[in-house]
Amino acid sequence: MEDKYTIGLDYGTLSGRAVLVRCRDGKNMAEAVRMYSHGVIEEVMPDGKTCLPVNWCLEAPSDYVEVLDTVIPEVIQKSGIDPVNIIGIGADFTSCTVLPVDAEGNALCERPEFASRRNAWAKLWKHHGGQKMADKVNSQLEAQGLLEDVRFGGRVSPELMVPKVMETLEEDPEIYEAADEFLEAGDWITRLLTGSHDRSCSMAGYKMWWNKEQGYPLPEFFQDLDGRMTDFTKDKLPGKICSMGDRIGTLSAEWAERLGLPEGIAVSPTIIDSHAGFAGSGAASPKQMLLVLGTSSVLAALSDRPFSGKGVLGGVKSAIVPGYYAYESGLASVGDLFGWFVDQCVPAAYEEEAKGRSLNIHTLLSEKAKKLKVGQSGLLALEWWNGNKTPHVNGELAGCLIGMKLTTKPEEIYRALVEATAFNTRNILDIYEENGVKVDEIIASGGIAAKNPFLMQIYADVLGKKLRVADSGQAAALGSAIYAALAAGSKNGGYDTYSDAVIHMTRLTDKVYFPQKENQEKYLKLYEIYCRFSEVMGDSESRLMQELHVFQQGE
Amino acid sequence: MEDKYTIGLDYGTLSGRAVLVRCRDGKNMAEAVRMYSHGVIEEVMPDGKTCLPVNWCLEAPSDYVEVLDTVIPEVIQKSGIDPVNIIGIGADFTSCTVLPVDAEGNALCERPEFASRRNAWAKLWKHHGGQKMADKVNSQLEAQGLLEDVRFGGRVSPELMVPKVMETLEEDPEIYEAADEFLEAGDWITRLLTGSHDRSCSMAGYKMWWNKEQGYPLPEFFQDLDGRMTDFTKDKLPGKICSMGDRIGTLSAEWAERLGLPEGIAVSPTIIDSHAGFAGSGAASPKQMLLVLGTSSVLAALSDRPFSGKGVLGGVKSAIVPGYYAYESGLASVGDLFGWFVDQCVPAAYEEEAKGRSLNIHTLLSEKAKKLKVGQSGLLALEWWNGNKTPHVNGELAGCLIGMKLTTKPEEIYRALVEATAFNTRNILDIYEENGVKVDEIIASGGIAAKNPFLMQIYADVLGKKLRVADSGQAAALGSAIYAALAAGSKNGGYDTYSDAVIHMTRLTDKVYFPQKENQEKYLKLYEIYCRFSEVMGDSESRLMQELHVFQQGE
Repeated sequence: MEDKYTIGLDYGTLSGRAVLVRCRDGKNMAEAVRMYSHGVIEEVMPDGKTCLPVNWCLEAPSDYVEVLDTVIPEVIQKSGIDPVNIIGIGADFTSCTVLPVDAEGNALCERPEFASRRNAWAKLWKHHGGQKMADKVNSQLEAQGLLEDVRFGGRVSPELMVPKVMETLEEDPEIYEAADEFLEAGDWITRLLTGSHDRSCSMAGYKMWWNKEQGYPLPEFFQDLDGRMTDFTKDKLPGKICSMGDRIGTLSAEWAERLGLPEGIAVSPTIIDSHAGFAGSGAASPKQMLLVLGTSSVLAALSDRPFSGKGVLGGVKSAIVPGYYAYESGLASVGDLFGWFVDQCVPAAYEEEAKGRSLNIHTLLSEKAKKLKVGQSGLLALEWWNGNKTPHVNGELAGCLIGMKLTTKPEEIYRALVEATAFNTRNILDIYEENGVKVDEIIASGGIAAKNPFLMQIYADVLGKKLRVADSGQAAALGSAIYAALAAGSKNGGYDTYSDAVIHMTRLTDKVYFPQKENQEKYLKLYEIYCRFSEVMGDSESRLMQELHVFQQGE
Repeated sequence: MEDKYTIGLDYGTLSGRAVLVRCRDGKNMAEAVRMYSHGVIEEVMPDGKTCLPVNWCLEAPSDYVEVLDTVIPEVIQKSGIDPVNIIGIGADFTSCTVLPVDAEGNALCERPEFASRRNAWAKLWKHHGGQKMADKVNSQLEAQGLLEDVRFGGRVSPELMVPKVMETLEEDPEIYEAADEFLEAGDWITRLLTGSHDRSCSMAGYKMWWNKEQGYPLPEFFQDLDGRMTDFTKDKLPGKICSMGDRIGTLSAEWAERLGLPEGIAVSPTIIDSHAGFAGSGAASPKQMLLVLGTSSVLAALSDRPFSGKGVLGGVKSAIVPGYYAYESGLASVGDLFGWFVDQCVPAAYEEEAKGRSLNIHTLLSEKAKKLKVGQSGLLALEWWNGNKTPHVNGELAGCLIGMKLTTKPEEIYRALVEATAFNTRNILDIYEENGVKVDEIIASGGIAAKNPFLMQIYADVLGKKLRVADSGQAAALGSAIYAALAAGSKNGGYDTYSDAVIHMTRLTDKVYFPQKENQEKYLKLYEIYCRFSEVMGDSESRLMQELHVFQQGE
């Protein structure tokens, strides 16, 4: 049989990419990336005049389609392979990135009458406009004794689907009415390609509280939130829920022609972008944990039994690996935070030095920061520049930095920010381990894992675990290609079991970071101070930042 | 009678300056400034090899002499007046800046054998190496029920003389033994010029717990601190204590010749630099408070009765204005803090914009920050980059900043730092007013007051008071010249009473900032949040920063 191939699409925060992969061994035959034309829409809407409130983060659905139209033809052309040998497509996507669509599946924001209505656009995963709605959900969960239910993870974040939809209903009920469905952007892609209304259990489970045993929360639950939402799941979330590994549908004639692909090939259900890396990095064992380090981060783990923890989402069986419960938590900003620092806080002298030595500014800062000893700067940060997911689940929390002196240098702050992200990752790891997840090794994926050995060593020291860097620079996209091979099945040249697919299509690198004993011990002490600082600012004295936030909103 | 003149010297943190002033009307005939050749010594000692610990801040006494040798001849030459008409000299100085000297008055650090011994140099006012010693003094004060004694201001700062000397005794007893005296640098200048061992009540009162009624603390007090210090005041602080307005001595023949001045002219006692501005700004009334805004700040007030407050120093009658108790408190970093921010945290794009528009970077940041509304950034800072004097009196506290988001801009942080300094100034004002000081107007002196209308308006809004900018750009140096005229007396062409001298030699400007009602009300709310944040980080949860500090010291 001739070699067969699948295409994995990876929709991130700023761009979408495709990899064309050989099923036999996972070889990356070609890849292509497309930046979103509108980028992240945070200040002014695409109409050029409508300003957005603080905490709003939108994207343009047309950008997602642009990705399909450019990167798929590009990987086919670049690889030189015959498209008839492509047997499947899969797409991962940021989540919960949600948009309202009409009965034909068209995004409502494309209609001229809705173009300036902010709730008609795609609300990006990190959109935090619905904090008040999340608060309402939390109050209700608390009143009904449901907070500890594994589906809700101890507290509901404004990043989930319901707070985002409630915000739409409250701000602009006409949009809510006009929406035939609210779709995760990833489900929208499979809807476009296949015409199927079915959805993936990945996002339904993590972002919409669905599980196989109970389905979605009952109508009474939504009625208590808002009478108008009683039939929300029935009316606005049609279709059945597919497990990962299934096939959600086949490529329509229209899109096959448009993209230059064979009609009828398998399309897999979408998966949360950070979870796709689990497969793409070669992790199949419950003793392997996945850490995805990108603009934000995810720490994903498998367990054979359900549990719940503050800010830990999951308890959905087979949402990543068939037969296991998959859990995720993570930090709302990691790469974003370092990017902010570099853009807003690094003095000209450093930029000049980097330029003069032809170094990336992150490399220069890492080089300087690496020379510092643990605790030497006296600085401590809470990395909540984009709110906190674990352990406080509070989007209104914001960044903190203490310990500055007149001698404090930029590289000291940079290191404190890196350490803060490591400390909170440790916090999540602790929750997993307290719940019986036994971890031998952490597989690190994402751009930062490959590019920043300084950060990786700090993570190894703070987490006290071996960290192995994933082989693929595009672990998420490769994961999507793996699910596409599963959707195609062995009869078409793909695979029938998850482990088969992962074993054949991935490999682990030898790039491993081991904890250094001396620093590990020092970090354990600093971590204790971090935890108390986190408790003070995020819990016992959280009113400080809450009141600042209220003040800010009032302006 | 021909016009008579005095010279006022003003020794700051980075430079010393002189003004030559006409006694009749205070006219500034000439001024000159000299940067200290060694600057502030914080990392490596002048031997080029001995590194200093964190928190150390030294200066080279030879720099102070260099100032005398250059600026006095320069103002005489520039002014063109006949030196025979110069009737007096006065000098203000940073305090407590302390140095050990031998029996001839020579600084110990000048001896080759002591050149690399850090305790032999002048410890600058902001030297914080003696925090442990300050802690010890505080423990003893607490045990003896003396903490509320007005002399100790609720808690002893490491910036005072005794912690600095205790540090010398503990680290390098040989230096302690070799020291014939420990002198405030200001008292050292009058010692050089006149040969007198007498000292000023200004520094003795504020920095060495002296007052007219009780003198210095008793030998038992020092014995309890350290048996070797029992006779500290008798052995190491000889001479009597002079009031402001007195004459401490007359110019020696040697120095008269060296500087080109008449022998035997009056030399006034030294005064703390920030207090000199009280006279130099034209403040004589107890309803006028003085705010000096420089690298650090001082808020000085007069009262007809003694009181004590956390971090408020004073209770020394006639230390500034005869007949009144003078109080001072202030912030350990103001201009220093903004300077740090500009040096370490402002991105290249801002520097380029400032350059392109020929603006000072502070002016550019102020321009951008001015456009923000109160509370708009969601940021809040504690300005403790150089420790906290009021209300926590703790040099181990460090700067805090909370509320950062991924959209936070440099000008927002800049504004938050300015606001933080205003909030803590408000805190001091509140302590004064609670103790019966009634303030009609605040006279603002120092470089920032004249140059930064953006900051001044925020101060007016936060303090809720009228702020008037002092006329003299050199209020401190003018104040020193006023005390020189008092030391000379009317028979020599000077003055006999403080009020006479101030009325004739100063004037107030019309540059006044009034509180804006709307912002004043908003700031009152933000100030409440500030006070709670200050209480959390500086008191109830101060162990956070204490532990970070201990960690840092351990490295």
